[in-house]
Amino acid sequence: MSNIKPFIDKLNGLTFDQMYQNDFFLTWEKTRDELDAVFTVADALRHLRENNISSKIFDSGLGISLFRDNSTRTRFSFASACNLLGLEVQDLDEGKSQISHGETVRETANMVSFMADVIGIRDDMYIGKGNAYMHEFMDAVTEGHKDGVLEQRPTLVNLQCDIDHPTQCMADMAHIIHHFGGVENLKGKKIAMTWAYSPSYGKPLSVPQGVVGLMTRMGMDVVLAHPEGYEIMSEVEEVARQNVKANGGSFTKTNSMAEAFQDADIVYPKSWAPFSAMEKRTKLYGEGDDAGIKALEKELLAQNAQHKDWECTEEMMAKTKDGKALYLHCLPADITGVSCKEGEVAASVFDRYRVPLYKEASYKPYIIAAMIFLSKIKNPQEVLQALEQKGALRKTL
Amino acid sequence: MSNIKPFIDKLNGLTFDQMYQNDFFLTWEKTRDELDAVFTVADALRHLRENNISSKIFDSGLGISLFRDNSTRTRFSFASACNLLGLEVQDLDEGKSQISHGETVRETANMVSFMADVIGIRDDMYIGKGNAYMHEFMDAVTEGHKDGVLEQRPTLVNLQCDIDHPTQCMADMAHIIHHFGGVENLKGKKIAMTWAYSPSYGKPLSVPQGVVGLMTRMGMDVVLAHPEGYEIMSEVEEVARQNVKANGGSFTKTNSMAEAFQDADIVYPKSWAPFSAMEKRTKLYGEGDDAGIKALEKELLAQNAQHKDWECTEEMMAKTKDGKALYLHCLPADITGVSCKEGEVAASVFDRYRVPLYKEASYKPYIIAAMIFLSKIKNPQEVLQALEQKGALRKTL
Amino acid sequence: MSNIKPFIDKLNGLTFDQMYQNDFFLTWEKTRDELDAVFTVADALRHLRENNISSKIFDSGLGISLFRDNSTRTRFSFASACNLLGLEVQDLDEGKSQISHGETVRETANMVSFMADVIGIRDDMYIGKGNAYMHEFMDAVTEGHKDGVLEQRPTLVNLQCDIDHPTQCMADMAHIIHHFGGVENLKGKKIAMTWAYSPSYGKPLSVPQGVVGLMTRMGMDVVLAHPEGYEIMSEVEEVARQNVKANGGSFTKTNSMAEAFQDADIVYPKSWAPFSAMEKRTKLYGEGDDAGIKALEKELLAQNAQHKDWECTEEMMAKTKDGKALYLHCLPADITGVSCKEGEVAASVFDRYRVPLYKEASYKPYIIAAMIFLSKIKNPQEVLQALEQKGALRKTL
Repeated sequence: MSNIKPFIDKLNGLTFDQMYQNDFFLTWEKTRDELDAVFTVADALRHLRENNISSKIFDSGLGISLFRDNSTRTRFSFASACNLLGLEVQDLDEGKSQISHGETVRETANMVSFMADVIGIRDDMYIGKGNAYMHEFMDAVTEGHKDGVLEQRPTLVNLQCDIDHPTQCMADMAHIIHHFGGVENLKGKKIAMTWAYSPSYGKPLSVPQGVVGLMTRMGMDVVLAHPEGYEIMSEVEEVARQNVKANGGSFTKTNSMAEAFQDADIVYPKSWAPFSAMEKRTKLYGEGDDAGIKALEKELLAQNAQHKDWECTEEMMAKTKDGKALYLHCLPADITGVSCKEGEVAASVFDRYRVPLYKEASYKPYIIAAMIFLSKIKNPQEVLQALEQKGALRKTL
Repeated sequence: MSNIKPFIDKLNGLTFDQMYQNDFFLTWEKTRDELDAVFTVADALRHLRENNISSKIFDSGLGISLFRDNSTRTRFSFASACNLLGLEVQDLDEGKSQISHGETVRETANMVSFMADVIGIRDDMYIGKGNAYMHEFMDAVTEGHKDGVLEQRPTLVNLQCDIDHPTQCMADMAHIIHHFGGVENLKGKKIAMTWAYSPSYGKPLSVPQGVVGLMTRMGMDVVLAHPEGYEIMSEVEEVARQNVKANGGSFTKTNSMAEAFQDADIVYPKSWAPFSAMEKRTKLYGEGDDAGIKALEKELLAQNAQHKDWECTEEMMAKTKDGKALYLHCLPADITGVSCKEGEVAASVFDRYRVPLYKEASYKPYIIAAMIFLSKIKNPQEVLQALEQKGALRKTL
Repeated sequence: MSNIKPFIDKLNGLTFDQMYQNDFFLTWEKTRDELDAVFTVADALRHLRENNISSKIFDSGLGISLFRDNSTRTRFSFASACNLLGLEVQDLDEGKSQISHGETVRETANMVSFMADVIGIRDDMYIGKGNAYMHEFMDAVTEGHKDGVLEQRPTLVNLQCDIDHPTQCMADMAHIIHHFGGVENLKGKKIAMTWAYSPSYGKPLSVPQGVVGLMTRMGMDVVLAHPEGYEIMSEVEEVARQNVKANGGSFTKTNSMAEAFQDADIVYPKSWAPFSAMEKRTKLYGEGDDAGIKALEKELLAQNAQHKDWECTEEMMAKTKDGKALYLHCLPADITGVSCKEGEVAASVFDRYRVPLYKEASYKPYIIAAMIFLSKIKNPQEVLQALEQKGALRKTL
């Protein structure tokens, strides 16, 4: 039996009117109330769906997806979210389009947006480029809307950029909130965001950056751990420090995985590439220097290989709070002896946490849907109420 | 003028409650009543559509398609079926996804299924693998649903595996039933499922296997004909023999196309690869033995070329019942002098049967829709009745 | 506040009943009334959408797209139009399908059309082929419908062929009509459809051909300008001459860009390949003569390079009526110093006209939707009225 009231009550205590007709780039550009509104609407939409009540707020309209990197789970999460709300996904596949033929971002942004309500972009490969590309794209549609070219201005959901991966980290956080029984219980909880060894090369920094940028909002004790040379963007570290000033908790760094895991309530061991290497790679790509890229790859793999001891083993897990820290990963993980010879996590640890890991992932479609909902609906409480009252079946019984 | 009653009356005489929330892997895993329910619901959905009445049972939801082999007609049939019922197709394209990057089936299955109501998989290339893959996939979502990861458990429609091609063979059968004026008229009818020459290599065995596995359910006289060396899976032949025991009719084998065509009511001449060769190929692919694969291909083409006389010519057709057997093919056919120099069927035969062949294919979207409908709707009779009563227009007049 | 009445009044004065259940191949195969009906319905649908009123006329159904050349804007326009009316786009991607494996057009056309309401095809690469392919495709579905294979006959929207680009030129015309305050104000207006230099090779002729074929319907003075050797299809020039006879205005040709621009109200400077070269190329492709194709490409680029002075510069623009002609382009344009070193248009000219250019493009989704609407709805006035009265929200407020 559906009961949307608790979600509405929660929303009534929050201020988030600036989200209406606005984009979602980085979590730290949003207020705590706005983030809480996303978590609450995500839960409300899930509640409606679990009670077989339609959440369609669009009769027609497009959700444009632009993936400049491979994706399974984010692609399906975006498609699920759009479908839940009544939008049809249209993929802007640069292979099929004329983008490569000298079309400018400004032009493309407008040309695909005549009937677009939301734009989801993943552009995480090149440091200094992805987030900037999204801004360029959205500035173009703002201008197009202002100039009367676009009837409506589509809003952005950042599906991963070079700086942040907000839909992932918000889903991670939704999982944490549910695990610990409420956001109010997170104060003083220790989370270890740690580097882990992977035999692959050049994984984006957006997850560790997004995690330290978001988790420091909740009064948690956030520890960032990595071998020397695997620094993340210093700007994001500064964001974390500012968050701590405003919200309490702490942000510390260490070059010891063991130290980070010690008494941790939550661990997030995951490989990433060094920021400086990614800067270098971006430059090499810009110059079309294939030989340089190959040499860099070789160098990075060798560098990685010096840190094979950065693995989330049973011994490591034993150091955590009661040996039972919540293990997080954005998936897919490099599992030792399963998906690779030596990887980020021991098979027995991964196996034990598989169900929670899948649940962690299950929040993403709802987080995305909530971001869209809040950017499109002026009075979310009224509309949630109306959806419940109407009670249109999601699926005929 | 719509009249759904005859379909409901027919369903009332059948037992098929086990289809609810269940998968469709192989026709011989279903009871006769269950198969008849599929044929009946397919006809009912077609009746509604032909009377411009909406069959939408989903307000939102995804139908996931996973094609591990090329497809036009099955892809469009699945898309049409999903659309008819209100689901949006989202294609799991392994090229665009991270599946190739060490992701396990279990994980992918869950990650794409958070809002999936149905999964359609085509995996027919490797003997011993396709059906097994589908089971692995569906076991994963069963577990995910049990563990609370998935709100709903999507159900499977097998869009062709290494063993059976149920949506094709059920569409073929729907065509036969309509041609002969009812399933009750099929007893004693002779159907020749025969090999035919093709200049191409390695066509799947799922159609001939599916045909002998399904047609022996109806009390028909099923003859399987092929040159020596083109045996199908022995397990499926055993299924056919068991079917005959239970349902009457007969199942015989011959190495003579002419013998199979003699007095046949229905002929289904079609190329396929020898089972043992497919086993060998699967092994070579597993070993990455490209040279071995090339050698095998050459050998198989040479073997095929010894049997160019296995062609559905006018002379062959003249041997059938009154020279007018119903000619079947899953399409596309290798037509002599049209799509190839020498092929499965003479151009004049194919031309004469083009319209019936296209009608045969036209049943597939409805068969798929019926499979989905029966796996998703607890009381199909009630819902069909309600759809007619509501009478929402499929298309504004 | 929505007011659909003026559109209905306009439609009441037009005769267009032959559009029902009919295809849209070439603009000059339609009467003036029929073209005006398209413009009017396009405006009406835009009016409804801008007033947040749903234009859904389909509860389910597919719009099939077949792009035999790259496309961004036309692809998204078709997707937007289908979505607006309630159809789901299913792309017939020849890479994913079995079309390349000897399947005939006739067969494919029927196999994808069981639940298709509209087919959008782009096939502009080969002279003498694209339009013929569309006819072959549509003849096949006509036959399939007549034979009882297809419940409904899908209708065609020509998304660009070798002869015409009707959705582009109709969008261009809608823009012109709005710019000059009504189709009745176009008599005597001078439009210069001129060739312009581009460093790329083999751009289709369908835009200049479509423009001279359509603009001569409106009593305008149409000047076609290009260097010697860049002739368009002579059949289309004949169409233009016949149009002038019937509708007044004029159709002239010149080899001087300056002459064409002199006192022009509208200019459309755009590169294209010579008709005879395209004929040659089509032949070489047919013969698989790669060396010949490369040689031709080299030759054409050299030929282009002799005409770098055919650029829409500020000097050129100054020659037009009050120096303020409406500048048109189908986009993307080759902009000097932006997308290429030397191109079709000076950056300052393009910049000044960016907003009108984007607005020009914004008509295309509505033009396509209107073409579908008129081919699917028997009484458009009634249905438009009913849509307004029902007033279903496009997007929940």
